[in-house]
Amino acid sequence: MKKYRKQPYDVANIRRLLEPGPVVLVSSAWQGRTNIMTMGWHMMIGFTPALFGCYIDESNHSYDMVVSSGECVINLPTADLLEQVIGIGNCSGANTDKFSLFGLTALPGEEVAAPLIAECYASFECRLADAKPNPNHPLFVWEVVRAHVATTPRLPKTLHYRGDGEFMVSGREIATLERYPNQRR
Amino acid sequence: MKKYRKQPYDVANIRRLLEPGPVVLVSSAWQGRTNIMTMGWHMMIGFTPALFGCYIDESNHSYDMVVSSGECVINLPTADLLEQVIGIGNCSGANTDKFSLFGLTALPGEEVAAPLIAECYASFECRLADAKPNPNHPLFVWEVVRAHVATTPRLPKTLHYRGDGEFMVSGREIATLERYPNQRR
Repeated sequence: MKKYRKQPYDVANIRRLLEPGPVVLVSSAWQGRTNIMTMGWHMMIGFTPALFGCYIDESNHSYDMVVSSGECVINLPTADLLEQVIGIGNCSGANTDKFSLFGLTALPGEEVAAPLIAECYASFECRLADAKPNPNHPLFVWEVVRAHVATTPRLPKTLHYRGDGEFMVSGREIATLERYPNQRR
Repeated sequence: MKKYRKQPYDVANIRRLLEPGPVVLVSSAWQGRTNIMTMGWHMMIGFTPALFGCYIDESNHSYDMVVSSGECVINLPTADLLEQVIGIGNCSGANTDKFSLFGLTALPGEEVAAPLIAECYASFECRLADAKPNPNHPLFVWEVVRAHVATTPRLPKTLHYRGDGEFMVSGREIATLERYPNQRR
C-alpha cells in the first residue's frame, strides 16, 4: 500500500476534504492499545475553530477509547483502501489489532496520542470539544487541532458509503468560482 | 427542468441517498411564506426512527422558519441543478421568493406544511426531534417521517460541496455485498 507524503494544512480548510461526505477511519489510543473504526456518519460544524461532528455508537470498541482519551485522529482513505475500509468496519478492536491485521502504519501525532495512518491521504488530529452534546444521541463534537494532507493528487478519490455494502466513489470536480465569483464560502 | 416521478420509500433506507454527503435543499414554510436553503453540513444519526442531523446557522433566514414551524423537507438535487443550488445558496429568503426566482415547483407534503421540490430526485419530510440540543452549536436533529424517491435512474448523480465554489459530482458505484456477504449494515 502506498504511503502518502503529507504537508501541514490549514485546519480552517479541512471541509474541502470532509464536507463531500467520505468514509473516514477513526484511529484512537488508550492504555497502550490502539484501534481503528470505519465511520460514515459525520459532518462539519465550524471553520474557526475547526469543528467536526460525528456519531459513534456505544456498541463500538472505539467509543470508550475516544471518550476516555478525549482524542482521536480522523484519517481519510482513498478508494484503493476499499478492502481495509470494509475489513476494519467488520471486526472489533476488542479482540483485534487492526493496524497489524490490515497492514497499516501507525505514525505519531504532534498534538494527540492517537496514531495517524500513513496509508491515508489526510489525517486530522482531534481533541474532544463536546462529548454527548445531546443526551439522547451518542454525538461527538471534535476540534481539529492539526491537519496533515497529501499534496498529490490535488484531490483524492474517496469512498462514500450507501449502506448494503455499496460505495460511491468520488467523481469529477466542477469549479464554479470563476462563473459565480461572489459565492458565500 | 425535469420533474422526477417519485415513489414512497422506506424511511429506514434514506441513508442510501444521504450518507454519501450530497448537498441538499432544505425547504420550509411559515406564516404563508416558503423558503429554500442550500446545505452541506449534515449527517445520518439513526435508522429507526430515521434521524438526520444538520447545522443551520442562525444567520440563515431558514433558521427561524424551521424553528418556528418545527418542520422542513430535505430535498436531494441532482447535478443538473447546479445553477439553482449555487443561486439558492447565495441569496436570502428575507427578500426573495426562491421557488419563483429559480423556477422550482412546490408540491404539498403529506405530513408537513413545508413544500417538496418537484425537480429534486428525492424529498424527505421532516419533523423536528431536537432543536438546539447543544447551546454551543445550532445543531438540529430531524425525524424523517415520510420519504419520496425517484425510481429512475436507480441512483442519482449528486453534488458534493468542497467550499471555494468547487463541487465534486458522485462517481461510479461499487457493490461489495457479494464479495463480503457478512458486512454490518
